[in-house]
Amino acid sequence: MNTHRRTPSDSFTIMNEIVLPNDTNTLGNLMGGRLLHWMDICAAIAAQKHSNQIVVTASVDSVSFKEAIHLGDVVTLQAQVSRAFNSSMEVYLEVFAQNIPRNEIVRCNEAYYTFVALDSRNKPVKVPELMPESELEKQRFDGALRRRQVRLILAGKMKPDEAQELKNLFLP
Amino acid sequence: MNTHRRTPSDSFTIMNEIVLPNDTNTLGNLMGGRLLHWMDICAAIAAQKHSNQIVVTASVDSVSFKEAIHLGDVVTLQAQVSRAFNSSMEVYLEVFAQNIPRNEIVRCNEAYYTFVALDSRNKPVKVPELMPESELEKQRFDGALRRRQVRLILAGKMKPDEAQELKNLFLP
Amino acid sequence: MNTHRRTPSDSFTIMNEIVLPNDTNTLGNLMGGRLLHWMDICAAIAAQKHSNQIVVTASVDSVSFKEAIHLGDVVTLQAQVSRAFNSSMEVYLEVFAQNIPRNEIVRCNEAYYTFVALDSRNKPVKVPELMPESELEKQRFDGALRRRQVRLILAGKMKPDEAQELKNLFLP
Amino acid sequence: MNTHRRTPSDSFTIMNEIVLPNDTNTLGNLMGGRLLHWMDICAAIAAQKHSNQIVVTASVDSVSFKEAIHLGDVVTLQAQVSRAFNSSMEVYLEVFAQNIPRNEIVRCNEAYYTFVALDSRNKPVKVPELMPESELEKQRFDGALRRRQVRLILAGKMKPDEAQELKNLFLP
Amino acid sequence: MNTHRRTPSDSFTIMNEIVLPNDTNTLGNLMGGRLLHWMDICAAIAAQKHSNQIVVTASVDSVSFKEAIHLGDVVTLQAQVSRAFNSSMEVYLEVFAQNIPRNEIVRCNEAYYTFVALDSRNKPVKVPELMPESELEKQRFDGALRRRQVRLILAGKMKPDEAQELKNLFLP
Amino acid sequence: MNTHRRTPSDSFTIMNEIVLPNDTNTLGNLMGGRLLHWMDICAAIAAQKHSNQIVVTASVDSVSFKEAIHLGDVVTLQAQVSRAFNSSMEVYLEVFAQNIPRNEIVRCNEAYYTFVALDSRNKPVKVPELMPESELEKQRFDGALRRRQVRLILAGKMKPDEAQELKNLFLP
Repeated sequence: MNTHRRTPSDSFTIMNEIVLPNDTNTLGNLMGGRLLHWMDICAAIAAQKHSNQIVVTASVDSVSFKEAIHLGDVVTLQAQVSRAFNSSMEVYLEVFAQNIPRNEIVRCNEAYYTFVALDSRNKPVKVPELMPESELEKQRFDGALRRRQVRLILAGKMKPDEAQELKNLFLP
Repeated sequence: MNTHRRTPSDSFTIMNEIVLPNDTNTLGNLMGGRLLHWMDICAAIAAQKHSNQIVVTASVDSVSFKEAIHLGDVVTLQAQVSRAFNSSMEVYLEVFAQNIPRNEIVRCNEAYYTFVALDSRNKPVKVPELMPESELEKQRFDGALRRRQVRLILAGKMKPDEAQELKNLFLP
Repeated sequence: MNTHRRTPSDSFTIMNEIVLPNDTNTLGNLMGGRLLHWMDICAAIAAQKHSNQIVVTASVDSVSFKEAIHLGDVVTLQAQVSRAFNSSMEVYLEVFAQNIPRNEIVRCNEAYYTFVALDSRNKPVKVPELMPESELEKQRFDGALRRRQVRLILAGKMKPDEAQELKNLFLP
Repeated sequence: MNTHRRTPSDSFTIMNEIVLPNDTNTLGNLMGGRLLHWMDICAAIAAQKHSNQIVVTASVDSVSFKEAIHLGDVVTLQAQVSRAFNSSMEVYLEVFAQNIPRNEIVRCNEAYYTFVALDSRNKPVKVPELMPESELEKQRFDGALRRRQVRLILAGKMKPDEAQELKNLFLP
Repeated sequence: MNTHRRTPSDSFTIMNEIVLPNDTNTLGNLMGGRLLHWMDICAAIAAQKHSNQIVVTASVDSVSFKEAIHLGDVVTLQAQVSRAFNSSMEVYLEVFAQNIPRNEIVRCNEAYYTFVALDSRNKPVKVPELMPESELEKQRFDGALRRRQVRLILAGKMKPDEAQELKNLFLP
Repeated sequence: MNTHRRTPSDSFTIMNEIVLPNDTNTLGNLMGGRLLHWMDICAAIAAQKHSNQIVVTASVDSVSFKEAIHLGDVVTLQAQVSRAFNSSMEVYLEVFAQNIPRNEIVRCNEAYYTFVALDSRNKPVKVPELMPESELEKQRFDGALRRRQVRLILAGKMKPDEAQELKNLFLP
């Protein structure tokens, strides 16, 4: 692998989990917080593969939980880096739930997590560039700038009217 | 308690957790996903207190992790309902980390989680109104409409140029 | 906060837990040992807040489990230091269980845990005095001497007939 | 086994646990609450063996933690029923910690837990009598009455001056 | 997917886990039993995908642990069905450990687990045939008969001198 | 205890576990992988008692799961060293499941685990000899050579036709 430039498939990571009783609420559905925890681990592994560094979670973008996931379902998480900045990486994540006896798979969630790579002295360190390949990977790569503006505004580090990419969205 | 109208303090919920080894990455810092899990449980208890119903997580808004939380720290989570809609509730959440021997407390995160109340047949059910009392509670109550538009846009259920409250933010 | 004298409210600590499947026996009731574990963590945080030191559990006084706590209940634990001795602290603890859909709260337990504060070399270290404020806090403060005699007798460090406070209890 | 009368060895139960990182505080010592949890499980198995019924914890007598137990130690718990009453059983429990590389075993704790046997409708049910055999088992059997008076007084179900066995302890 | 015949890639399953403190012994190495547990879950998901049924573990063949896996390593498990019999499936499993900062991947283990598919009344149920595709998959498919003879001998259900495939191995 | 020679009873280790919800699959049966994990811990304690050293799992021989173990059952594991080689020990293990209300005990499994003893620098270290006492212990001691040949063949470190003990099994 090239250590300066990497593709999304270099960091592609799959996790499978079975929903056990302690992962569910009293209705027998997977608790949202447990899924957020699994998503963080899966996305962190992808960011580690991209950077070959220890990483820490910097942020998670909004996540909505549309589909109930049930006790005994197999949850499949897929993550890959969608864009690299200086020392941070945006990771794109999809979640599927599979009811094995009914042979049904449902796409449940997508999300973006951001991680910072740290060296052994706990300081941010430069990460390789991301080179998107497929059309979809290029779209996500381009959208990363817009999502980054949203994060900076939400963190109070940018004023809304400086966010040119976002303004274009809301203007006719 | 009035069962039709409730105040934020009716649902106020505190959780304390000690950061144990399995909660940390190899740098000894609390993993983001574990914190998201704790936040979900604390916010869900607040939504249950408001609605007297079983609740399921509908969404979590963007969360950024600015401060590293360390092994052995006491993490304090505080949650209260910030606005009730028909069958859903927005919960506001703050997270603090305390290093006891150094007598230091740091405010680490704030977040908004949204929950839907379900009856015993698993169907959405009406929840009591929220009556904000303090000035801060009223600000969060008003901001809830704007945050709801963001969620609807992100979930693909509203077009950006229909979101009047948001458009105002980006226009001079 | 005064570092030589503290009030019970300086160490007041609340924990909320949801009873999950793995916390229950085959009847669906919270296991006593799990509750004792949560009580120890909650009381330890209170003792750490009072002393600003790492603490270790020295003893737990008798605890009786009168009320069954059920799967899905919200368990609320409240702890505060009831008296400080040289390097040890007695912590008073109350436990409540809440059935959210039925809107019922039951007071389940009270208990006294004792902790010793240790410095970074693992040696006992002096802790601040406790200044009780309310009438109830003063009663618990006074009773602490009697409870301490019971602990010393049970640990074989005091003979029953030297325990003057206790003897008064049993004499007409 | 006789189903009306049983000996302490009929219910004798051993548990071994290794102290893992999540069981310890930041000093690397086993947390008291985790040990209380293990003790409850071990004692409950002994009470189940005696009664052939599901059991629930009714109370734990005072426990003091004299010896620090360390990360990696093997903890051995031994439990056996010390006396049976109508539907309740008192269980005697001893705890040992073993540092394998140093070949050191330390006796850390003893404790009494009380359990109630429940039938399938969740109602208390009669349990077999206990027939002590060794001299030590007979002493514990006799002492059970005195410990029961302490529990009744602590639970507010008996007045101290009615507890004849206890009064004898404090009178010259 | 054809419900009567499936290929190994139809059941291919990947799991990634990070080695956390509680997974390790006091030398900081992953405990063998924890790895066997993860392997069982990963192989069970593969068998469920092949059969669209709930499955239970019937046996695990000998596993040797040649490489120490360390705290913080990313463990990758890959499983796929290697042969289907009437109601049972043999699953082939490989384990890799990755030290991210050093960019090292080590192949640690391979193993064969066997599962039985059960219907909703808990009875064994017929599973689809396996059609191997690659040369390696065909070799594993053929070897399955020999491994099955070993299991039958070890379970006392076949005499060694009836195991013709095995005898060939030991004869010149 | 003699530090050069030890008997199987010197290392005899018992563990009792209650099957909790998270240990079971959706049929309410104990998952095979969880049992393998418990077996590893119990066998490791036996090997540590024999050697007074930290030990790591080297291999587990084939294990078959004949009996379903159910939610709420008490699982009893018994382990003892069956033969010591230079720095490795073979441990024999039996597993029983007990349904307390039905007063039924079932013998579920037996297995052989092998461990290597390590010194504080992580290097293999010589362990005491094992002196079998009972007839059964002597049979297991003798069989250990044959099982060791199987392990060496399976690990690719011995050719089948060099395994004289095994060849005798398959020849008339």
